[in-house]
Formats: sequence, C-alpha cells, structure tokens
Amino acid sequence: MSAGDNNFESSDTGRSGAPLKHAESVTFEDSVELDRGEFLDEVTVAYETYGELDSSGDNAVWICHALSGDSHVAAHDERDDPGWWDVAVGPGRSIDTDKYFVICPNVLGGCRGTTGPDSINPKTGERYGRDFPTITVNDMVDVQRRLLDHLGIDRLLAVTGGSLGGQQALRWAVKYPDRVRGVIPIATSTRLSSQGMAFNVVGRNAIRRDPSFHDGQYYDRPDGPQVGLALARMIGHITYLSKESMRRKFDQTRTAPRRLDAEFEGRFSVGSYLGFKGAEFVERFDANSYITLSMAMDLFDLGASVDDLVEIFKDNPCRWMVMSFTSDWLFPPKESQDIVEALIRADRSVSYCNITTDCGHDAFLLPADIDSYGRMIGAFLAALTGDADRRRSNRNTESGGLRPNIFHPANPQRLDYDVILDLIDPGASVLDLACGNGDLLAALTERGHHRTLGIEIHQGDVIACVDRGLDVVQADLNDRLVTLCDKQFDCIVLSRALMEIRDVEGVLEGMLRVGRKCIVSFPNFGYYKLRDMLYRDGRAPEAGVLHYKWYNTPNIRVLTIRDFEELCDELGATIHQSLALDTEQGIEVCEDVNLNADLAIYVISS
Amino acid sequence: MSAGDNNFESSDTGRSGAPLKHAESVTFEDSVELDRGEFLDEVTVAYETYGELDSSGDNAVWICHALSGDSHVAAHDERDDPGWWDVAVGPGRSIDTDKYFVICPNVLGGCRGTTGPDSINPKTGERYGRDFPTITVNDMVDVQRRLLDHLGIDRLLAVTGGSLGGQQALRWAVKYPDRVRGVIPIATSTRLSSQGMAFNVVGRNAIRRDPSFHDGQYYDRPDGPQVGLALARMIGHITYLSKESMRRKFDQTRTAPRRLDAEFEGRFSVGSYLGFKGAEFVERFDANSYITLSMAMDLFDLGASVDDLVEIFKDNPCRWMVMSFTSDWLFPPKESQDIVEALIRADRSVSYCNITTDCGHDAFLLPADIDSYGRMIGAFLAALTGDADRRRSNRNTESGGLRPNIFHPANPQRLDYDVILDLIDPGASVLDLACGNGDLLAALTERGHHRTLGIEIHQGDVIACVDRGLDVVQADLNDRLVTLCDKQFDCIVLSRALMEIRDVEGVLEGMLRVGRKCIVSFPNFGYYKLRDMLYRDGRAPEAGVLHYKWYNTPNIRVLTIRDFEELCDELGATIHQSLALDTEQGIEVCEDVNLNADLAIYVISS
Repeated sequence: MSAGDNNFESSDTGRSGAPLKHAESVTFEDSVELDRGEFLDEVTVAYETYGELDSSGDNAVWICHALSGDSHVAAHDERDDPGWWDVAVGPGRSIDTDKYFVICPNVLGGCRGTTGPDSINPKTGERYGRDFPTITVNDMVDVQRRLLDHLGIDRLLAVTGGSLGGQQALRWAVKYPDRVRGVIPIATSTRLSSQGMAFNVVGRNAIRRDPSFHDGQYYDRPDGPQVGLALARMIGHITYLSKESMRRKFDQTRTAPRRLDAEFEGRFSVGSYLGFKGAEFVERFDANSYITLSMAMDLFDLGASVDDLVEIFKDNPCRWMVMSFTSDWLFPPKESQDIVEALIRADRSVSYCNITTDCGHDAFLLPADIDSYGRMIGAFLAALTGDADRRRSNRNTESGGLRPNIFHPANPQRLDYDVILDLIDPGASVLDLACGNGDLLAALTERGHHRTLGIEIHQGDVIACVDRGLDVVQADLNDRLVTLCDKQFDCIVLSRALMEIRDVEGVLEGMLRVGRKCIVSFPNFGYYKLRDMLYRDGRAPEAGVLHYKWYNTPNIRVLTIRDFEELCDELGATIHQSLALDTEQGIEVCEDVNLNADLAIYVISS
Repeated sequence: MSAGDNNFESSDTGRSGAPLKHAESVTFEDSVELDRGEFLDEVTVAYETYGELDSSGDNAVWICHALSGDSHVAAHDERDDPGWWDVAVGPGRSIDTDKYFVICPNVLGGCRGTTGPDSINPKTGERYGRDFPTITVNDMVDVQRRLLDHLGIDRLLAVTGGSLGGQQALRWAVKYPDRVRGVIPIATSTRLSSQGMAFNVVGRNAIRRDPSFHDGQYYDRPDGPQVGLALARMIGHITYLSKESMRRKFDQTRTAPRRLDAEFEGRFSVGSYLGFKGAEFVERFDANSYITLSMAMDLFDLGASVDDLVEIFKDNPCRWMVMSFTSDWLFPPKESQDIVEALIRADRSVSYCNITTDCGHDAFLLPADIDSYGRMIGAFLAALTGDADRRRSNRNTESGGLRPNIFHPANPQRLDYDVILDLIDPGASVLDLACGNGDLLAALTERGHHRTLGIEIHQGDVIACVDRGLDVVQADLNDRLVTLCDKQFDCIVLSRALMEIRDVEGVLEGMLRVGRKCIVSFPNFGYYKLRDMLYRDGRAPEAGVLHYKWYNTPNIRVLTIRDFEELCDELGATIHQSLALDTEQGIEVCEDVNLNADLAIYVISS
C-alpha cells in the first residue's frame, strides 16, 4: 500500500449539491418565538423519510443529526448518495427501514434546506447573515415538533441522535415526553464540558476573526470566511477522533503525507488530512451555520448536577437507552453516566452501555462497532414494540444456558435463582447486581415485576440483556457509579458475586441503604469438602472442587457462612432469613450449615 | 468570591519587556550548520544563571524551557520579575540555587534574546522572517552545547525540562552523553503523537493563513498575525489543561465570565479566559518563533518504537529520572513509559514516577504537585551528588521500619529479607518487584550491588526509593508495563506480593523469562493455624491470625506451598531451593513444611 492510502476515509460524508431524493420540506408561515425571546417570521424544515408509517402510526423513529450532518441520514437506494448513518439505517439494519418509518430533519440553523443564517429573511428579502438569531437546542426541537404534527404522527416510537443530535434527543424527551416512547441519546451529555466548549469557542473565533467574515454578511461577496471555517473544522475533527485512532491513521505515513490541499500545511500526514477535511468542509457548509449550531451546543444545559437531572427526569414516561464510547473524550462516558445515574434515581426505565472502542467520539458513525451499538439500538427498538417479549423467554434455552460459574460449571438449573425468586415478594421492584445475561431479571419480568434493573460490567452480557428487552446498566460495582436513593428498591439481589468484589463493605453498605430487602448468595468456603482440601490436602480450597484454580479465579474474596454473619453484625444488618444449599445434591441443608452447605442465601436489611 | 475571580491565574507568566537581570548573552560568530542542511551565519544565545559553580565544576544544572518559556526560569531576588519555574528553582527549592549552579538559555528560534526569526539576518541587515531556517531540537541542543563550552563547564550534573524542554533534555542525553550525568525528562516524549501534532498544525495554519502574516515578513508593517497567533495560543492552552482542571476553573462561572478582551468571544467563562490568554500572548511572543518552535517539536523523533529507543540508549552512561503526570493528555504517561521501558531494556539506570494529578500537562509548572515531582527532582539531584548515600542507610530506622504487611504487622526484622539477601549472589543484578520503600534494594546497594531496580505501584513508596538514591520505576505488575529482555537480570525478587497479583501466571512467566534466578516468597495458607481456622472454626483463614479481614485484605490470591509447587510444575519451572519459615518463632521449618511454615521462599528458574 502506498504512503497515504486509506488516510482519507472518514465518518462524515460530504455530499454533492445534487437534489435530494425522497426529500421533502414544509414551511410554517406563522411567526415562531424562540427560546431567547427573538422571533423567526417563518420556518422551513427540510427532511427525509424512509420506510412506511404503519396503520397504527406507532413505528416512527426520529433521527437528529449532529453539527455537520443533514437530513440525508441514509441512501434511499443503491443509486442514491451515501447518507451519514448508512451503517445503522436501512433495510435489515439496526434501524430497520423495512420495519420502521424513519424521519430525519435538517436542523434549525443548519444550511441544508432548513431555515438558517443563509436563508432569505422574509423581512428584508436578503439572507439573514448576522441577523439570524441565537437559537438553542430547545428551538430546534420545537420546530421538529411542528414537523411531527405536520406529519400527523402522535407519538414517536423513538428519538435518537449522537453528539448535538443526542442533545436534541434529550430535549425531545424532556420537552415532549408524551410524544416519545423511547429515547436513545448517544455520545452526548446534558451540558458540554468546559473543555468541549473551549474547542467550539476557538472555532468560532477563527471564523469571526477571519477578515472575510465581514460580520457575517459575506454572502454577496466574492470571498467568505473559508479559512476560519476550515480551521474550526480542523479543530472539531481532532476532537472527534481518539489519540489511538489518530495514531493508527497517521503514524505509518507520519512525515510522508499524500498531498491534497496546498492551501494548508501539508508537511505531516495528519496535517495533510486535516487540511483536506477543512477545505472539503467549506464547500458544503456555511460559516454562520457553524457558529449558530456550535453556539447552540454550548448553550445547551439541562442541569449542572445529577440532582438537577433527577428533578428533570422525575416523572418522565419514556424508556431510555444511553450509550457512550470508552475512547470518546469530547463527550466522555462520565457525562452519559450522570444521565443514567439521574434516571435510575428518578426510577425511570433505563439501559446503558459504554461501548469499548478506540474510535473516539466518531465511533457512533463508524462501522467498527456497529455490532455492539447497532445491535443495542435494534434490540431496544424491538423491546419498545414488544418484539423482545418472545425473545426473553426463549433466551435461556437458545443461549445454551448459563455462563459457567464457580459453583455451576455444569448446573443449568441454577437452584439459587429458584430459591431467590421465591424470596422476592410479588411485584417488588428489584435491582440485580452483577446480573449476567439477565436470567433472573427475565424470570422476574415473566412473573410480572414491572420495575427491574440489572447492573453488569461485561459488555456482552449487557447487550444480551438489552436483547431480551431488560433494563440493564453497565457499571462496575466497585466504582459505586450508581449512587442510588435510600430504600429505592424493594429488593436488591447480589447473587454469587460477593466474592468477586473488592470493596465488599462499600457494596454491602450501599445495598443495605438502597434496598428495603437485600438478598445475598455466595459460595461457602466453610463447606466440608473445601475445608478438607485445605486441612487434609494442604491445597487452597478453590483448586479442585471448583471450576477455577487459585491463580486464575475471578474470586478475590474467600468467606464462610460464619464470616458473612459476623460482617452483617458489624454492619448492623438484620438477618431475616437464611438458606443453605448443597447444590450438588440439589437440597436444602438444615444442620451444621457452615459445614454442609456449599451455597448460602441470606435475606438482610439495615 | 465574585464571578470570574481566580480564573486568570496561570502557569506561564508573561513578562514585561523590562531588561533581564543576571542575564547574559553570548554571540558565536562562526557559521553554524543546521540539522537540515541550512546555515546560520551567527548565533546569539541569551541565558540566565543562578547560584555559583563550585570549584569542582560538578554542580551545574541545565534547564531547558518549553515552547512559550524563556531564560528567566526564576526570580533572582524579591524585586525581580517572577520566573516561569519559581515553584521549583530557587534557594532551598527542589533545584536549590544555594547548592547548584543553574543555567537556563533561551532556545534557538525563540524570541527572547536568542537568535530567532525576529533577529537581524547578518546577510541582509533585515529581520529573518520567512528566511529563518527550519530548525530542530538537535540544532537547539547543539547551540546550547556551545554555550556550555563557553561557560567552561565540562559536565553537567543534570539536564532537565518539560514538554519541548523535555525533548531538549532527551536530545542532550543522546547527543552529548558524556557532558551530562543525570537526565530528567518531564512530561515529554521521544516523538509527539499525531494528536499532539494535529493541534500544532492547526495553530500554524491559523498563523500562516492570517492575512496579516504576509508570508512571515510582517515586522515592518503596522499589523501582524496577532489573530492567528492568539488562536494558536488558545488551542495550545486547551491542551495544557486537563478536562478536570478546566471544569474546576470555569464551571462555576460558566456563562458569567469576567470580560477582559473584547476582540474575542467572551460569552462563556472559558472563552473569556482563552481570549485573554491569546491576547496576552501576542504581546510577548513572535508568530514566526511560534511556528519555528512548534515545528521543531513536531519534527523531533528519537525513534518510532521502543526497540529503536533501546538501540539509541544502549550505551548511554547517564542516570535517568523520567516523570509524567496522570492527567496529561498532550504527552500522556504511556509516552514516558516507552522511554522508561527502553532504558530498562537497555540496562540503564532509570527511575520513573507517574505523578497522580488532575492538573494536566501544565502540572509540572504548578505548585499543586511540587511536593511529589519537586521532591523527586531534589532527591535525584542529591543522589547524583552522592548525598543520598547517607540517607539510604539511615532510612530504615528513620522511617520507623516497614510498611505493615499481612505477615508482619509488628515484625520489623523482616526475616524473609535476610533470607532473601543470603540467596542473592554477590554482585548480581537484581530486579525487586513490588519493592515497597526500598529496604531490600537499599540493603543490596549497601552490599555493593551496582545494578538494582525496583518496581512499585504506590507513588509514596516510589518517592521514598528515589529519596534513598535507588532506581525505582512506578508500574503495575499486572499491566506488564515492563517487557524486559530474556535473562536480563541475574535475580528477580517477588517478596510477599504474589497474593496481591491478579495475573499470577503472567507475572511468574515473565519473571522466569527475564530472570536467571527468581526468588518468590509468599504466605503459606497451608500453615496449621490457618488450616485450623477454616477447619475447626469455619472462618476464612485470613480473619484473625492475619492483619486484615477477608473483606478488606489486599490479598486476592490464596495459596499453599503445595499449590505453588504444582504451579511451578505446570509452568515448567525448576525449583532450586526452598525455605520454609515460622516467622512468629523466627525459625526455619524443616518438617511438614506445608503445615508448619507460615512463609515460604522459593528459588526457581525456567
């Protein structure tokens, strides 16, 4: 491969000026009052649709694009231009246009058909330019809601979008909760970090201080702020990639770039690429629009703290699925996790996955991780339509049973789950910590529990849970990501995971605070076979009877029934019930439990 | 505190144009051939000195400044302007000007007294401007070496610098190894990442495409590329801070900034700050210099891989101390770790600490972490002068003995260290994994071992080792940071740390590969008291006899002597010797060792 090859594929696709296919627009001629008190006399919205609205009107999926996107989210057919999210939208894709009616509007303030700074101001007959008002994400969504009315759709199956599109999705859910069943905010946040704002500020300064900007009135001039806009785009582009993805893209050809644009420095591979991207961008984007949209992004602010968000989300009727990407440093996972934390504390239905990727913020536009984030979107949409119900019950047999576990290398019956199910009051709200692929949660849902939530660290298990239509949040119990409210759940389950937890006290204290009732099951190292191993054979108890060896077991805590009871005592927990099982024989043990049981199940509370 | 207060303190101090005190300059009138084939007909170097060169000439410390710095590293007295590194340089400070003769030159290509693009080109009598050649870090150091000759100093005690200054320190060590005893590269790398280059490229584009740049010939014009330079500075400034430090600085006053510069957007607190910083910078810095120096930074390339670096460092006689900062994303710790890895593989003397801080790249200029990085610099300089020798031997009693350990809550004799010392051949090279505060390494050094190295994860212990003049590298054994060469050390010690390691197999395999002889000591859970605890009392062995409880012990692996021998067998390791101790009685155990010993020590090899 010659130097520079493959350097120039990119996530966002610049489109030629060809007329849009399957594209429509609608003009609202009454005056629109904007968030910050200004008015627009009329507003045109350009949008594209895919698929068919079904007779019930229940299958509409609304896609909000990011700063540089437009209404052309996907190609309509093979002859059509590529869309910016072809990877996720189309027949048989995650957002399956054979099943769903997809609508994607160009954003207010944009420059691809919807009213923006380059539109004609009906008052003056000239382009708005500097007279275009400051708009907010709220204004964008208000105009989109008008389009929704115009389309005669009562309620959307889901709203989704990434980055600025994710901010719109958040605003949709908060402003028009009754018009949206499901919300999928991707790689976004309730307010941009100061670091993220800083990059936007420098970009806007580059445009505004370009002498050809002429205070925004450049439309009738031969030149425009091309340099400033290109610089802004270059800065933005760096923030969309990760350090690692840039290394991969540019380090091979570091000082031997393919030279594509002579107007910018082309000495290094990364510079040649950015110059190309910047120059390409000014061909298709309006500088005033860039200022308008990046300013809206910076002004977006749903609340400064998780507490604020809890208040905002408190009666929200939507189902939520939040996604972030591990290497996204523009909208880092922590910002999505704050949204998720608030939704859990507000008792809302939420799932969350932090997709492991090195593609950075752009990951949501790229094919590399479509198997994870795309599958989650598809599964969540299916859950919203009820399609997941069938899968949930079938799952257990389909997937060939359970993940191997120290006590259940080949015991698919999961005796402890049956016992635990019996211990949970009918209809109770249940939090299942380290829920795995969701077997217990699925059984509870079958039994009619409405409020269940799983916490799980492994991405594969999280996806499996979403596939089954379950609410699941990816988190490490040791990080105490989820700072829940006192007595928020009727019941919290920690099934056979205590011994994998580093911060045992922290997790148990949290459970006792948050759950009215806590069910803890754990393998008992006081079991006679394990005692014998150490006592008679002089081997660590885990080698042999159990599935792992001492040096590779995920279990980092060793405890007996007696140890556990002593810790409960120290923590001031009340033991309401205890069950001891011999899982090999599949029986409950009643005598000398610390000797005769290999698994213990406790019901405790604070 | 009113909105915006405290927003504007900063790490780099812009200085007024007042004449430098204690400042000198020297002009070399012969032509200098540069790295890339061009010539400079004469070169002037501005520099400042602090303290006195002692009679042996052995106490000179050379400080290289970063992109925006100058020769004024510190104030010379109370009436003097502040220097850019006052926090570290001065009487009684880390780089103690009462002890050391400190020299700080302005860099070649700079604009604060040393020849740069704004200097008069002797050929034309005009300022160089666009005719100033492309220079490299190598050129900078070559000119500095001339200054060193001029000062009559044969060999520097140490060279240090951060960022671009760190690149110069690296080049000093590689180009003039015999002129430097110690090297302290801080927050730097052997080549800038593509992401880091990207920010520089955009900054240079902003300057070059400023219409007032006039291809670099702006000196005689009324205007100059102020806007472009300010934009470049703003971009740079973002990269010097961390996301967290920006949050702390700006989030309180997010939309209520103190307005200081009306030329740039001042809507948000972070924008107002950047506008101020940008405007301030153009008052004291030359745009051509900025291009020249940032280009030198991008061109610097000691090698693409750790293998390349091993080759470069292979006969290097210097002692090295490398430092990075956890939240530095411009020069992330990984890039320092590559340097350290290469130095270890090249059998060089190296210490390394990754200072925990949220101050980002700028951390090395700020007071927040001076207690860690400053103390390390001071200790390393002391070690270079031999001052550390006394401290090393005194340390053990001074520090009150050993860190508490599961087997030694109150056993300062450390029987196992004595035994281990006996097992190490005189003069052997020794790698001590999880070396703690360096007791074993200090004892070995006392005994005359020249090549010893500790690996330790805790920052406090790393600093303690450096304080004792020992070579120590901060790393997590589980991460296998150190991919050492086969049989690189005569002896590797893993004393009472096996049970804290997650990846037991990986670490043992690594030891067997890298060490000719490996000494492993571990607590034996087959010890009769521990067996009894589980067998008779039904409690996990750790509760009681040992220092921790089952739920809070750092020990995550439980093993017996028998288990260990079986693993050795599986790994194909040869057991050369084994010792079993009863540490309570302080005796060696000879019979039924798996029952009667609480500590085992093995000598193994592959």
